Amino acid sequence: MKIVALVGSLRENSFNMQLVKTIQKRYRTLFDVEIADIGILPHYNEDDEHAPSEEVKWYKQQIVEADAVIISTPEFNWSIPGVLQNALDWLSRVERPLVGKPVLPMGVSQGALGTVRAQLHLRQVLMSMGINANILPPAGNEIFIGAAGQKFQDGELTDEATLQFLDQVMDNFVAFVKEETK
Amino acid sequence: MKIVALVGSLRENSFNMQLVKTIQKRYRTLFDVEIADIGILPHYNEDDEHAPSEEVKWYKQQIVEADAVIISTPEFNWSIPGVLQNALDWLSRVERPLVGKPVLPMGVSQGALGTVRAQLHLRQVLMSMGINANILPPAGNEIFIGAAGQKFQDGELTDEATLQFLDQVMDNFVAFVKEETK
Amino acid sequence: MKIVALVGSLRENSFNMQLVKTIQKRYRTLFDVEIADIGILPHYNEDDEHAPSEEVKWYKQQIVEADAVIISTPEFNWSIPGVLQNALDWLSRVERPLVGKPVLPMGVSQGALGTVRAQLHLRQVLMSMGINANILPPAGNEIFIGAAGQKFQDGELTDEATLQFLDQVMDNFVAFVKEETK
Amino acid sequence: MKIVALVGSLRENSFNMQLVKTIQKRYRTLFDVEIADIGILPHYNEDDEHAPSEEVKWYKQQIVEADAVIISTPEFNWSIPGVLQNALDWLSRVERPLVGKPVLPMGVSQGALGTVRAQLHLRQVLMSMGINANILPPAGNEIFIGAAGQKFQDGELTDEATLQFLDQVMDNFVAFVKEETK
Repeated sequence: MKIVALVGSLRENSFNMQLVKTIQKRYRTLFDVEIADIGILPHYNEDDEHAPSEEVKWYKQQIVEADAVIISTPEFNWSIPGVLQNALDWLSRVERPLVGKPVLPMGVSQGALGTVRAQLHLRQVLMSMGINANILPPAGNEIFIGAAGQKFQDGELTDEATLQFLDQVMDNFVAFVKEETK
Repeated sequence: MKIVALVGSLRENSFNMQLVKTIQKRYRTLFDVEIADIGILPHYNEDDEHAPSEEVKWYKQQIVEADAVIISTPEFNWSIPGVLQNALDWLSRVERPLVGKPVLPMGVSQGALGTVRAQLHLRQVLMSMGINANILPPAGNEIFIGAAGQKFQDGELTDEATLQFLDQVMDNFVAFVKEETK
Repeated sequence: MKIVALVGSLRENSFNMQLVKTIQKRYRTLFDVEIADIGILPHYNEDDEHAPSEEVKWYKQQIVEADAVIISTPEFNWSIPGVLQNALDWLSRVERPLVGKPVLPMGVSQGALGTVRAQLHLRQVLMSMGINANILPPAGNEIFIGAAGQKFQDGELTDEATLQFLDQVMDNFVAFVKEETK
Repeated sequence: MKIVALVGSLRENSFNMQLVKTIQKRYRTLFDVEIADIGILPHYNEDDEHAPSEEVKWYKQQIVEADAVIISTPEFNWSIPGVLQNALDWLSRVERPLVGKPVLPMGVSQGALGTVRAQLHLRQVLMSMGINANILPPAGNEIFIGAAGQKFQDGELTDEATLQFLDQVMDNFVAFVKEETK
């Protein structure tokens, strides 16, 4: 199973990137995680959507080849970062490879709330694209990791309770992906 | 009075850009409109926020010098484009020049709805930044220009009823800016 | 096929009620529409959720017996009316009969926008309940009926273009219900 | 200073009610808190808005006489309860006594998130009513009380860290009310 991960933060020591790398390593027997760098994408421009740059082509191809997509986002201004919104803008036009792909949203914050408002907006954007049927159902599966400073060490998520919760959600997601793609 | 305009669409024949240019010309005796090109901004990266690129510095300085800000946006995926979200991300950190500035949201679409969902999200982002007190109150002042194909000609808004409505809102906005900045 | 309709407006000459009655009559060979009066429901109170009043029991039973649900709503304050929110609150606790039922949102307004913001919120509430997978996909199926004063006569929707659009959406919805419930 | 409090939960042992009663007692030298029972209000009906019931008249009069309004809400379905939405519906039509009143949103939940999604929607509803300018600015003033089971005892908020935070926000709110109403 191949999963493509999109990370909404570009900073070097991003906790969201650390979360994705933790997932990549911890569940490597369950699936392969490819991290698509959305920071290389140009700003979406309708004039270019039928002949996009190599970066955009590469990025969309990653999604085409994925069995499922993970989106890990910080919260900026009660919403998602522009760079992530832009990455979704590219997916919403012409070839729309996210449609029908199982998606799992998640997020990490240094504050207490774990990006809940960002993910609410992310779900709405996905819903608009007709992806809603393929988001892992939220009950029991919402990943809001707050107080990141206490839960990550040496570039990895190390908080045991959070890891156990993540184990459950990943089991649910793998089962969901198998069901959706069979 | 100096107004800076942000335009959420980068395409060459953008109706939102045409709207802003119509405003720039039609109300030139009331205020000067400077159009800040948000397409030149890099994706926001927290690592760079204290030493941003020249483009970011120039852009933030435009807002510092403005008496008020107009934001004209298309609707992408029931939300605003990533490029606009990104431009707001830069304004929300370190020096925050939008705080306290009067803001007027607007938008043009080819469909019937005139970007109402995009503007709803835009208001929420502005609210998170503490700008809410300075948005022109919505009652009677919401600018949703649908059916753009019928209302624009030769690069300008020409629909008479829409122009008359715009005249009223601009009067309201100028009065609001004077009140807020006195 | 039995469809239960919820109407977010309680006023006697509600355009949303007229829309539902038009649907009830026009598509009577495709499905039966039962209109559940949500105005009789008490305000939701968690203390009563395990032993609700007769009205609540009757209402939830209507949903249990439905093959699908139509929700037609006005827009109040960029959102749905409290009376409709309350009707959804009752469905979200203890027995949750809306889960798994196909849902079709719609709305009528006297203004131009046709309740688009109300329906955006309605979709979010449904998504929280895990209903998202069962909402008719929005592309081509969003029913925003504005300018109601010109489109309804003698208590019925009579605007020909709107009726033809409605015919298409209803075909799509019937096919969707059959697919989802088979 | 007279503050009217609206509580979004009707259950007898509501933590939101306990929060409001804690505020009523703890800050009694700063302001009087009147708790308006929104559970007695009928569902809003436009047909009745010009000649509302005694309950509605009494309720709107409470708001008229208030210097400021506190709204404490649980989160239902990522939103506010219908009963609270309904109470706001009544305030949004004909006489609109909430316009211009300083408002402070807050909420308590048993889970970790402290009603953050409910308050996000509440802010949007208030914004639509033109109240946005009068909400206490969010930075530093957002009251999300999670894990209520550990923070309340014998019907009162007793968690010391939360109380100290509340002391600060209440100081900010009192100063804001004085500024807005002078």
